[in-house]
Amino acid sequence: MNGIGAHEVIIETPDHQQTLATLPVNRIEEVLWAYRDRILDLKKDRRFKYILIFKNHGEAAGASLEHTHSQLIALPVVPKRVLEEVDGSRQYYNFKERCIFCDMIRQEVEKSTRVIAENDDFIAMAPFAPRFPFEMWIVPKTHQSAFEESQKHEFEQLSLILKDMLMRLDKVLDHPAYNTIIHTSPFPEASNDYYHWHMEIMPKLTKVAGFEWGTGFYINPTPPEESAKFLREAATAVLA
Amino acid sequence: MNGIGAHEVIIETPDHQQTLATLPVNRIEEVLWAYRDRILDLKKDRRFKYILIFKNHGEAAGASLEHTHSQLIALPVVPKRVLEEVDGSRQYYNFKERCIFCDMIRQEVEKSTRVIAENDDFIAMAPFAPRFPFEMWIVPKTHQSAFEESQKHEFEQLSLILKDMLMRLDKVLDHPAYNTIIHTSPFPEASNDYYHWHMEIMPKLTKVAGFEWGTGFYINPTPPEESAKFLREAATAVLA
Repeated sequence: MNGIGAHEVIIETPDHQQTLATLPVNRIEEVLWAYRDRILDLKKDRRFKYILIFKNHGEAAGASLEHTHSQLIALPVVPKRVLEEVDGSRQYYNFKERCIFCDMIRQEVEKSTRVIAENDDFIAMAPFAPRFPFEMWIVPKTHQSAFEESQKHEFEQLSLILKDMLMRLDKVLDHPAYNTIIHTSPFPEASNDYYHWHMEIMPKLTKVAGFEWGTGFYINPTPPEESAKFLREAATAVLA
Repeated sequence: MNGIGAHEVIIETPDHQQTLATLPVNRIEEVLWAYRDRILDLKKDRRFKYILIFKNHGEAAGASLEHTHSQLIALPVVPKRVLEEVDGSRQYYNFKERCIFCDMIRQEVEKSTRVIAENDDFIAMAPFAPRFPFEMWIVPKTHQSAFEESQKHEFEQLSLILKDMLMRLDKVLDHPAYNTIIHTSPFPEASNDYYHWHMEIMPKLTKVAGFEWGTGFYINPTPPEESAKFLREAATAVLA
């Protein structure tokens, strides 16, 4: 492994007062296209094995700059947490011959208690076993392993549901600190049947303490059915 | 797996003004004996597979109570992070026929740049790849896989070096928030040749953010050689 990498900052707007939640939908879409274009460009460097795109919003979420921005880090190795998730998905696929995320979507839609909202291309839900209160996942409805291979209409729909979710968070939790992370396939096998890219949004309401560090287990006092209910009822005008 | 467990709070002193660092050495030793006695008692319940002992000091480290205390959580399963560490140690042992922690102690003492202090039974050092600035480990010099099987003189020596390290932290970092975690062997194979119990002390100076959540990798701006130097030079009267 080479000690190389790339670290880029995506400045989401020139306006210091805005947040990702308050940006117009078409500006959020521009941010998503920037994510995609930078991934596609950096992927040409064969030394990179993974590109992580994330956002720290607010001091409690680790933001060191106030001006709204996202970050991209290209790594010469597939990170431990990504490997665990991809390997788990592959095992499920080998056993069931179906993508675990496609199965999850089917189950969640049927049960509906953890679904927050949906549009043509995406579903937003509280996961079955969230590590954090009000954790939510935005998942494309059609199987797609790599974020950067999404269709144009998917970027449009993603910007809509993302703005909607961030506005609901601001409304329900009064502008919390949060992290967003894009979970997508490592290279070179970015297109595959077993993994399903998605975006995770994690408000930072609780502190990670000794129990979490010592076990890797997370104490979450808020059931996902409850957080989904609050977020579902905080409908905004975005998806209407 | 049964949904059972135990959660106990060890109140370290009746005096609300004290911290673990300011308690007299013999009172710290009493706390360590309480850890041990509670482990030995709870171990009798065969449904428990692991007992985690940890401490959250200060709000940034997740402490919800101000009065100085430690916590014990008995679990019906070996936690993910414990499994990873124990499995890694076992693999090393199978390959080298030596305990990886015994090897680490030998190397660190020889190199000495990451050693902070030692006494008859323990060594305190900054680990080679710390996740957090000023992270330190207190490791018994003689191979011992289970905390609760330590010798009487080891509890005495541990209380001395623990007080010393906490006082140095307070001095160098001006009373930081921190977590302590005892890493010890799961049952029933608590006595073994491959794992080596130790205590980890992690000051909370940086925030865990999107990069850490997305990768499981930790950005640490402080090299261990530097933190060890600061802590070494902040000698207290405890070990003198």
